[in-house]
Amino acid sequence: MSAPAIRRIAFIGLGLIASSMCRAIREGGLAAEIVGTARSAETRETAREIGLCNRVVDTPAEAVAGADVVVLAVPVGAMDAVAAEIAGHLARDAIVTDVGSVKRSVIDQVLPQLPEGVHFVPAHPIAGTEHSGPRAGFAELFEGRWCILTPLPGTEPEAVERIERLWRDMGAMVDRMDPEHHDLVLAVTSHAPHLIAYTMVGVADDLRRVTDSEVIKYSAAGFRDFTRIAASDPTMWRDVFLHNKEATLEILGRFTEELFVLQRAIREGDGEFLHDYFARTRAIRRGIIEAKQDVDAPDFGRVVLKKNG
Amino acid sequence: MSAPAIRRIAFIGLGLIASSMCRAIREGGLAAEIVGTARSAETRETAREIGLCNRVVDTPAEAVAGADVVVLAVPVGAMDAVAAEIAGHLARDAIVTDVGSVKRSVIDQVLPQLPEGVHFVPAHPIAGTEHSGPRAGFAELFEGRWCILTPLPGTEPEAVERIERLWRDMGAMVDRMDPEHHDLVLAVTSHAPHLIAYTMVGVADDLRRVTDSEVIKYSAAGFRDFTRIAASDPTMWRDVFLHNKEATLEILGRFTEELFVLQRAIREGDGEFLHDYFARTRAIRRGIIEAKQDVDAPDFGRVVLKKNG
Repeated sequence: MSAPAIRRIAFIGLGLIASSMCRAIREGGLAAEIVGTARSAETRETAREIGLCNRVVDTPAEAVAGADVVVLAVPVGAMDAVAAEIAGHLARDAIVTDVGSVKRSVIDQVLPQLPEGVHFVPAHPIAGTEHSGPRAGFAELFEGRWCILTPLPGTEPEAVERIERLWRDMGAMVDRMDPEHHDLVLAVTSHAPHLIAYTMVGVADDLRRVTDSEVIKYSAAGFRDFTRIAASDPTMWRDVFLHNKEATLEILGRFTEELFVLQRAIREGDGEFLHDYFARTRAIRRGIIEAKQDVDAPDFGRVVLKKNG
Repeated sequence: MSAPAIRRIAFIGLGLIASSMCRAIREGGLAAEIVGTARSAETRETAREIGLCNRVVDTPAEAVAGADVVVLAVPVGAMDAVAAEIAGHLARDAIVTDVGSVKRSVIDQVLPQLPEGVHFVPAHPIAGTEHSGPRAGFAELFEGRWCILTPLPGTEPEAVERIERLWRDMGAMVDRMDPEHHDLVLAVTSHAPHLIAYTMVGVADDLRRVTDSEVIKYSAAGFRDFTRIAASDPTMWRDVFLHNKEATLEILGRFTEELFVLQRAIREGDGEFLHDYFARTRAIRRGIIEAKQDVDAPDFGRVVLKKNG
């Protein structure tokens, strides 16, 4: 067996994504040593308890010392402060990467602060669950999922390839694109859908004539899928919207326009328009299943779960 | 073992809900005979092929002859025509029930056409999947789910109780409420969420700068859950919106208002407002899991599925 490709990998932040990476890296023998830190003492304590890393340290500065790869796994609004904390402690030739859901803003926060000789390879794994924290991670989270790299012009190709290899070794497929294009694509496939789900759950929460208990009892009719999306980490999502403001607002504008067209068709009783519209949206679903980005089990997967669980 | 509570049950329509009921009734020995019909010859042929009913007949009139319970399981827009077709052929004292997602409109379509001595007990099981047709059904679909009855003043209590018992025997829990209240509750928990999901998928479909393939590849970030909801049967959903127009438009109006408030918070960078909002919506999710209306497995249930499937 060959030596691990990475000598020491350091994680700043130990939430769902970082803790899944730690597990995948350990299982795959992808790094000789894993060092981690988190802002909250409670998270660090949990990480120690469950043996997530080889060492859990108290500060980002300690964590990055001597690391050849550094992973910034904090909410995108915290990248600026973290970059400032680690800048003076990075090893020469270290590769800094991140897992943020927004790329342009993270690049603008991190890149100007990194010293000469340090490489920055922005990355975003398209994987997650509605759970958060160090206990929520699992090694298989990235299997069969995409990770998008948005490398900057002038970055050493070898640094980009090492990060690409790390993701492939954890089971992911890797794509590369411009940060701006990434932010628009994700506004469509993730950021706008999340805001819409939060909004719908908020409406239900507010409605006085429909009691909480009814909303919950009859949620299997569609609403429960919105609540799952809307159960994601509030801090992470606040930061996503604030740091991908333009693209998110653009897609929400398009969404509202489209919703008004459908509302008018309902009001005017235009059944043909509605039927054609709903038949068209089925095609995208088939594409997702063919691309193995979802399973085709009925009852939203839950019948099978119940039988096995 | 006692004789089945129902001698002959007739199904008009053999889609997901009816075919699940047929299976549950057979497994539970709840009726001595199951007769079914469907408008399309293909559906009737499939039903014969898979042995869904004791007899599959060609017309609603033949199906209801001599049946003590008749289940209208067609899209809510077809109830009027079906009621006209069966009215002259119903047995005296027969109980007619339905499974439509809208209750006031179905009552208005069906009730005036039923002859003296026939009982009408409107019902709506809150269960389903994104699949449709006679092959999509399974006996466990209603287990642990709610079925709402909206009985009319003056209906014989015994008729209502027989339908309630049928649903309980198929594993469902039963609630009763006014048709108007039902339609409002379902507009919140089902109809508005479906229209919103259709809209978001339509927006993604339209966006030229984000290719189809990108929308599909990166769908695991939230969008795929919308596509699953938006993969439901187009005819059924067209009819739901046209027949629950007022309540759906009311909830969509509230939704748009709320969305504008959140959009403004993003535009103005009001992180505190966003964080508080997102933290609040988490509570409803916990309620749904405690009420056993969803499972708490991570990765939206799909990791477990993959391992078992």
